[in-house]
Amino acid sequence: MNVLILGMDGYIGWSLGLHLAEKGNKVVGVDNFSRRRTVEEIGSWSATPIQTMEKRMHIAKAIYQDSLHFHEGDITDYDFIADVLKSCEPEAIVHLGEQPSAPYSMIDAEHAAYTQQNNVIGTLNLLFAMRDYAPNAHLIKLGTMGEYGTPPIDIAEGFFEVEYNGRRANLMFPRYPGSFYHASKVHDTYNIMLACKIWDLRSTDVMQGVVYGTRTHEINPSENPDMCTRFDFDEVFGTAINRYCAEAVIGHPLTVYGKGGQTRGFLALVDSIQCLTLICQNAPDKGEYRVFNQIDETYDVTSLARTVKKIGERKNLAIRVNHVPNPRKEAEEHHYKVEAKHLRKLGFKPTRTLEQELDLMLDDLLGFKGRIKEKECAIYPKTTWQDGKRIIQSSAPMNRN
Amino acid sequence: MNVLILGMDGYIGWSLGLHLAEKGNKVVGVDNFSRRRTVEEIGSWSATPIQTMEKRMHIAKAIYQDSLHFHEGDITDYDFIADVLKSCEPEAIVHLGEQPSAPYSMIDAEHAAYTQQNNVIGTLNLLFAMRDYAPNAHLIKLGTMGEYGTPPIDIAEGFFEVEYNGRRANLMFPRYPGSFYHASKVHDTYNIMLACKIWDLRSTDVMQGVVYGTRTHEINPSENPDMCTRFDFDEVFGTAINRYCAEAVIGHPLTVYGKGGQTRGFLALVDSIQCLTLICQNAPDKGEYRVFNQIDETYDVTSLARTVKKIGERKNLAIRVNHVPNPRKEAEEHHYKVEAKHLRKLGFKPTRTLEQELDLMLDDLLGFKGRIKEKECAIYPKTTWQDGKRIIQSSAPMNRN
Repeated sequence: MNVLILGMDGYIGWSLGLHLAEKGNKVVGVDNFSRRRTVEEIGSWSATPIQTMEKRMHIAKAIYQDSLHFHEGDITDYDFIADVLKSCEPEAIVHLGEQPSAPYSMIDAEHAAYTQQNNVIGTLNLLFAMRDYAPNAHLIKLGTMGEYGTPPIDIAEGFFEVEYNGRRANLMFPRYPGSFYHASKVHDTYNIMLACKIWDLRSTDVMQGVVYGTRTHEINPSENPDMCTRFDFDEVFGTAINRYCAEAVIGHPLTVYGKGGQTRGFLALVDSIQCLTLICQNAPDKGEYRVFNQIDETYDVTSLARTVKKIGERKNLAIRVNHVPNPRKEAEEHHYKVEAKHLRKLGFKPTRTLEQELDLMLDDLLGFKGRIKEKECAIYPKTTWQDGKRIIQSSAPMNRN
Repeated sequence: MNVLILGMDGYIGWSLGLHLAEKGNKVVGVDNFSRRRTVEEIGSWSATPIQTMEKRMHIAKAIYQDSLHFHEGDITDYDFIADVLKSCEPEAIVHLGEQPSAPYSMIDAEHAAYTQQNNVIGTLNLLFAMRDYAPNAHLIKLGTMGEYGTPPIDIAEGFFEVEYNGRRANLMFPRYPGSFYHASKVHDTYNIMLACKIWDLRSTDVMQGVVYGTRTHEINPSENPDMCTRFDFDEVFGTAINRYCAEAVIGHPLTVYGKGGQTRGFLALVDSIQCLTLICQNAPDKGEYRVFNQIDETYDVTSLARTVKKIGERKNLAIRVNHVPNPRKEAEEHHYKVEAKHLRKLGFKPTRTLEQELDLMLDDLLGFKGRIKEKECAIYPKTTWQDGKRIIQSSAPMNRN
């Protein structure tokens, strides 16, 4: 099938592009390279060395022939995305083309506005272009489990049935985004729901957990480092698990934010790609907006750090876990139970546990220890939810509660 | 008290500014005059003649002395709104500074993007500027009952208690916006909720029904036409009730969209001003985000048209009610029951019924019959939810269901 990937230069975009091309689909990728620029802006880089898109495409062409194409451009430009839809005629559109960092969106008014403007207007343009040039295409929007926040009840899969004043209804499950980035994803949710309703578009909203890992069936940094996907480990673009792994590799104490009871859903990169491929193959009906909670396991961040320590120690790494002041404003202990049945019904079977994947990740990252060490200063939290400014730079751990 | 009104050149903004100045507050108004430009863009104007802000302020100064001030500027420019907060030191900020038309947001990708960019980024800038320069001010956000849409259960006042999987919680009541404009208001809702949570700001989110009327305690078009507030009657900026009144005055059949069972909440302009004044006087606690449903009565649009016909016939106007194809995609018959207790608890007492206010409105509009007649072509629906394009121009009524 014809698949359009918006944000194909990113962590998941590049991995998905290679996998779908390998499976014989015709893949067209789009990116404006904003991720490379924003990571550079905050003084970091990917632990895995990332080739230029030109070089990536050159190597990929040798393997996948004519299955993979790329256009540089920005979907906040309506004419650009309209032209792409006209020429690509996609059956599925995987929308990864957004600014994906919560801390980045909290730096100041300018970064918050950039995040929401970029994400919301890009998606809005995409919806109008789909209406006019690809009304039957299936929009797969990469949302995030963070759209739900941490409500005091179980997290339903997008919708839940409730009773109020004697009437029962199936309603949208409430969203509690915890940053202006997460809020931008919720804004997209509303715009996409509306477009499905009024224009009969079809969409799957993927509420994805935290994705981790350095390998897929097509990517192996030790065998072919030129085809790596990116791996961010800094405080702005790196997730907790990525930071812990990078810290473990260079002998920096693992920096757990606050009490460390913050619980989230996780899945391995290779399993995220499995899910997204399944979703491409199973489109909803015209006019349908559906929500999939895409996670495998749930962990709190202290357990994550302990697991990294355990696997790292098997590789003779000396690892300490430190609790540092939490730069975010978030619940550090909370209820967290997620319903995630839809993808399993479509056939999703997780293939990697956290421990298995960490074993591979740490091996791969040890090969890039020098690159991590060089940007060590980008790991420690500086961007706060309070005023975006630098917090105490000391590496001294806070007292455990 | 010091009150900042964003959007003071608009229908409610101007009315509120005069009332608060009359009551002895120090009022600072801001506007970028976008409403004047957008109404001109779609080929219409206000039925009531609107003076330039310079002339308005000149007359107001003679009445209210130093109580009323004005700055031209755009809050999508962060530095502008930050400077205004620094100099004005507001205790209450009434935020009416948004693109307020649903049809305008549905014209095409550009108009949708303008609406969301203008509304969301303006509010985001305001929140950051409040954090830094007015952290104790009370933000009164003009939301709309349209954020809720028409759910199959009673509409709670922002939050409702529900049970799910054996756990009870007080959750955000779901929002179902029906246009990209309404969605922009929902986006604001999420951004404001977040800012209250992480920065301890305080806000009242006013889910206002449709406001109608030409008069307040300070405004009377027959006595002082130079101090009128605007009255839009075109298909893009005019509400159903405004269109019906304008049609009644020039002998055009009243254009009810579709079956006409669309039910909404309403309140008279003078009562909206009463509510907003009450809210200014009663700030929530620091960190509190609260929601008020600000309506008086509910009507379906067919009953509205019949009431306009009844009152108009008393004035010897010949009035016919036509059902025309609905340019919107919306439920034309639905459950609609709204909880609205908070404002009444604060002391709100509606002072005008629909019939009483219509009686005054039609009198006032008869005085501007020539201005309405001149822009008659702007009344008939052209902007559709389907593709923003013109629909059949015929005035032929559709068959009643």
